[in-house]
Amino acid sequence: MPDEQARRIVLASRPHGEPTAENFRLETVPVPQPGAGQLLLRTRYLSLDPYMRGRMSAAKSYAKPVEVGDVMTGEVVAEVVASDRPDYKAGDLVTAPLGWQTHGLSDGKGLRRVDASSAPITTALGVLGMPGFTAYAGLREIGRPKEGETVVVAAASGPVGSMVGQLARKAGARAVGIAGGPEKCAFVRDELGFDAAVDHRAHDFAEQLGAACPKGIDVYFENVGGAVWQAVLPLLNDFARVPVCGLVSQYNLAGPPEGPDNLPTTMAAVLRKRLTLRGYIIFDFAGLFPDFLRDVTPAVRDGSIKYREDVVDGLENAPEAFMGMLKGRNFGKLLVKVAG
Amino acid sequence: MPDEQARRIVLASRPHGEPTAENFRLETVPVPQPGAGQLLLRTRYLSLDPYMRGRMSAAKSYAKPVEVGDVMTGEVVAEVVASDRPDYKAGDLVTAPLGWQTHGLSDGKGLRRVDASSAPITTALGVLGMPGFTAYAGLREIGRPKEGETVVVAAASGPVGSMVGQLARKAGARAVGIAGGPEKCAFVRDELGFDAAVDHRAHDFAEQLGAACPKGIDVYFENVGGAVWQAVLPLLNDFARVPVCGLVSQYNLAGPPEGPDNLPTTMAAVLRKRLTLRGYIIFDFAGLFPDFLRDVTPAVRDGSIKYREDVVDGLENAPEAFMGMLKGRNFGKLLVKVAG
Repeated sequence: MPDEQARRIVLASRPHGEPTAENFRLETVPVPQPGAGQLLLRTRYLSLDPYMRGRMSAAKSYAKPVEVGDVMTGEVVAEVVASDRPDYKAGDLVTAPLGWQTHGLSDGKGLRRVDASSAPITTALGVLGMPGFTAYAGLREIGRPKEGETVVVAAASGPVGSMVGQLARKAGARAVGIAGGPEKCAFVRDELGFDAAVDHRAHDFAEQLGAACPKGIDVYFENVGGAVWQAVLPLLNDFARVPVCGLVSQYNLAGPPEGPDNLPTTMAAVLRKRLTLRGYIIFDFAGLFPDFLRDVTPAVRDGSIKYREDVVDGLENAPEAFMGMLKGRNFGKLLVKVAG
Repeated sequence: MPDEQARRIVLASRPHGEPTAENFRLETVPVPQPGAGQLLLRTRYLSLDPYMRGRMSAAKSYAKPVEVGDVMTGEVVAEVVASDRPDYKAGDLVTAPLGWQTHGLSDGKGLRRVDASSAPITTALGVLGMPGFTAYAGLREIGRPKEGETVVVAAASGPVGSMVGQLARKAGARAVGIAGGPEKCAFVRDELGFDAAVDHRAHDFAEQLGAACPKGIDVYFENVGGAVWQAVLPLLNDFARVPVCGLVSQYNLAGPPEGPDNLPTTMAAVLRKRLTLRGYIIFDFAGLFPDFLRDVTPAVRDGSIKYREDVVDGLENAPEAFMGMLKGRNFGKLLVKVAG
């Protein structure tokens, strides 16, 4: 163990538009030694999520960008290897904001215990972690679907979208998922139990979406933006709510796209239909996390809330998997297995 | 009186872009005769408001469009000339959705009594009417300014904007008004008591707005859209609230303008800054109208809430005054004096 090497992936350069392999660099370094009050953590699974694209850019946002040369940020499930803290001992499992690396130190901040007997440990990064909580908090605080209403979400086979639809149905609403390709659509409809699934790659996507929402849309859970938003906008009902938690279709934009200018049409709809658009990140609702676990964990255990994971093996494959995710190539919550 | 003629202005044709004189037609018709349960009303003052531009178009909205050949819609202060209803008698003053005409019939629906002893009757169309209530409801239900926050509103010398700023100051917030030209800016700052006023015609408008909002913007009361929104967007603080009650800069658009496409930048700000954009019309908050009158009437009476009116004489001049208002030519609440 003392001779073991740590590996990590750092931001080699900032992307212009789509990230490429050259923006990442795999480094091998000595395993760090924990100091007083510190833990040494070893990563089991790394979560890959669309928000990371934002951290690769220097633009001001709710979180600091990753600096060039720094380890890519990310949440992991890790095992405590050594502890100089009374609250953790070797062998404990935690989620930690450790980043894209095999080992890291922690002073205990930002950790959450993972109970391996409660559910598979990977779920702490997906259905019972940040993505699931994003769906839960956005619906509960902003979307507020009522019985008989229609809830639409894109990336519906992914970890946020799949939870949005399933929670909407538990609230008595009609859930319509948008996904890329027939295989994902079949999964959304047949496995996750959405009322309908629409393939955004279809040439008549907007018409199909309209047909799937015969009573219009009351809640649109926005995580993609772009062409999907343009198809959703005319279908929104008066007083529709739009939680905005992501805009993956536009993360690679280097600047405002060519026209026409779609902003006036959206603003006119906000006014005429009295829409509410509200952006949020999960840290805004951190106080709800215990409610989330209380409400959702039993449903995951008893199978009434389903999920799918897409696990890539080896830290060195994280950049390629991440770039593929931004193009919708993953199928389910994307994880990197870093150590068994 | 039986020989008196009524005059009315009808929609002669739908505008493409900016309305022109040809879109309106002045007609002279016999004064209508009230039937059973009806009132005959004679207009004293007609209110001209930006929303009327929307009614001239056939596009679907929260209210039905005016049909070609129909009287232009609008709120008036009217006097009851004859009544076949027990609840009104000749000489009573009411506000009524009578439209751009000298006389009209009413079955009593949509009327509100005007107390001429409480305040000048024109205020029932402005500071104590729909525009004032628009400001009150949007701030109370959506903007929710807190002490020390910064509230920005455009068209600040107008009936909505002037109330937004004065109510914001009563809530302990900093009020920054945007207006067109030095005369209006001086009025906003020196007469209405805003903390600052910025001229949107200035070549360095965006910089001036930034300087007037050293702690950013917490509430932007949106009633214009367009270039003002683009200047406001970078100044909005995290968790800023944007009540959207009008978009006068874009009412004359015949379709989406040329690019660039400004929508992705706005949506990215909604997400990153966790903004709330919410459209509303006053009918959504009709239940708050008694609160509004209770809270605001004393302040108008004692002069702690100020207002300015821009009164044009003669119904025949309503189209020109209306077209000028869409270009910001009025100075204060625009009214047409129809009968003394």
